[in-house]
Amino acid sequence: MSAFEEFLARVRTDVDRCLDELIPSAGTEPRSLHEAVRWSVFAGGKRVRPALVIAAGEVFGAEPDSLMRTAAAIEMLHTYSLIHDDLPAMDDDDMRRGKPTCHRQFGEATAILTGDLLQTLAFEVLAEDEGLDPSLRVRLISLVARAAGSPAGMIAGQQLDLAAEGLALAGDEIERIHGQKTGALITAAAAAGAIIGGADEGELEAIGTYARNIGLLFQITDDILDVTAPTALIGKTAGKDAAAAKATYPSHYGVERSREMAADMLAEACSALETLPHNTTLLRELAHEIASRRR
Amino acid sequence: MSAFEEFLARVRTDVDRCLDELIPSAGTEPRSLHEAVRWSVFAGGKRVRPALVIAAGEVFGAEPDSLMRTAAAIEMLHTYSLIHDDLPAMDDDDMRRGKPTCHRQFGEATAILTGDLLQTLAFEVLAEDEGLDPSLRVRLISLVARAAGSPAGMIAGQQLDLAAEGLALAGDEIERIHGQKTGALITAAAAAGAIIGGADEGELEAIGTYARNIGLLFQITDDILDVTAPTALIGKTAGKDAAAAKATYPSHYGVERSREMAADMLAEACSALETLPHNTTLLRELAHEIASRRR
Repeated sequence: MSAFEEFLARVRTDVDRCLDELIPSAGTEPRSLHEAVRWSVFAGGKRVRPALVIAAGEVFGAEPDSLMRTAAAIEMLHTYSLIHDDLPAMDDDDMRRGKPTCHRQFGEATAILTGDLLQTLAFEVLAEDEGLDPSLRVRLISLVARAAGSPAGMIAGQQLDLAAEGLALAGDEIERIHGQKTGALITAAAAAGAIIGGADEGELEAIGTYARNIGLLFQITDDILDVTAPTALIGKTAGKDAAAAKATYPSHYGVERSREMAADMLAEACSALETLPHNTTLLRELAHEIASRRR
Repeated sequence: MSAFEEFLARVRTDVDRCLDELIPSAGTEPRSLHEAVRWSVFAGGKRVRPALVIAAGEVFGAEPDSLMRTAAAIEMLHTYSLIHDDLPAMDDDDMRRGKPTCHRQFGEATAILTGDLLQTLAFEVLAEDEGLDPSLRVRLISLVARAAGSPAGMIAGQQLDLAAEGLALAGDEIERIHGQKTGALITAAAAAGAIIGGADEGELEAIGTYARNIGLLFQITDDILDVTAPTALIGKTAGKDAAAAKATYPSHYGVERSREMAADMLAEACSALETLPHNTTLLRELAHEIASRRR
């Protein structure tokens, strides 16, 4: 196992343990709700956002323990967004990570409440992070809420994405949608780690450039996999984007040009890191990992 | 206009102005999302929870300005819960406050995202409340998140309520569901105001007893109105609870006994206030207002 693979394995173990401690047990009433939360959170997610929090934090010298709740909270927000996105009124997905989606397993009403609860829990977890100074906690809550909300964050991107179905969009509109829907929370994850590590404004700007490119890279890779990978491999229904006439990079630019754009984004992300005097190996390897993923 | 009516009018004006400032304008993209947020927030709500924040805060000497964002944030959480409760997969309501519900007006996908956004905004607003010390902000966020979440809060109560449809419940089970679904956020509203006003532990306990009774009183009054008031007056479809075989006080105890219980709760709420040396007129009148409401 390479040092980077060891890092990813450690993140998964630590974040999963933290999530397990923070989420009410499956035996706590109302059981179906907490079972559904656990079903969705422990469904084999790749923990990309927690890895970004922890990598960015460690680059700036933060203690791993001081990053854990923030990493868990951002993963909760990500999971809530997937649960709601999968609902019949939204993307209407039956499978996610090779398992039935939350509403297929627990019913639509419980899935709505499960997503709602994961959002609430995320902010509860950030507010009660005793290891961080309260002024740092409110800064992180503000950062994360803006990245998850509207007009600049995830919910705005999701609304624009739904409104764009079937429309021919310009390239910059596709970038805006993806930048908000996927990129904003990924950027916030990296920024949150760097803030906990004590990064200054100039350093945060470099991390922001890195993370915005990673966010788009992540989405473009996702879009390419939707076109090129079989359902069994990616664990969700392949070809859904085209069927729903979604605005994606491959549908707009074609697969080849999309692959070139992904390579450019990877290069830009890495060159932003070079402006920092820190050892940014973790972040660079994470960018390469995102670019080369197969599911 | 009595002094108390003037207080309620002032709360409505001030809270509505604050909400208007905090919510993205209807012209901000994505417009349909922000229009839907505004449609739901400015739909003629009674602003009971903001009134509780402000009344409890003023009783303990808080400046009205220092209470406004907390009042607005709690109203946002309340509104998000109504939007999601009204969805077809939940209570499936077409009308709310005499107008089409959010999903009837804007579609189901937008309604889901509108509720999601109001929850995000509530925590953003609390985190960015520059008038309060950060340690106070994280305390309020924690309080409000627990009241809105699970296992002790609103989402837990909603899940239990859905699971209980068609079942014969014991009286204490009905009280638990209502205590969580409606009571928890109402209790948090009063506690938040008192905390901002600097109330000590003993004072918070008295406010807690008052608010728990107010919360149940609010719900029992709602249930009685659902049975006895015509649709045009209450602004939502009357008789929905019985049609859905909901667990309510009138269905369990009958209307007469429910009215007696409401009177007992009002008396208990007021007697909790008598343990305080403060001028609690505002809170007492608010309790009477809730008990005697006709819609």
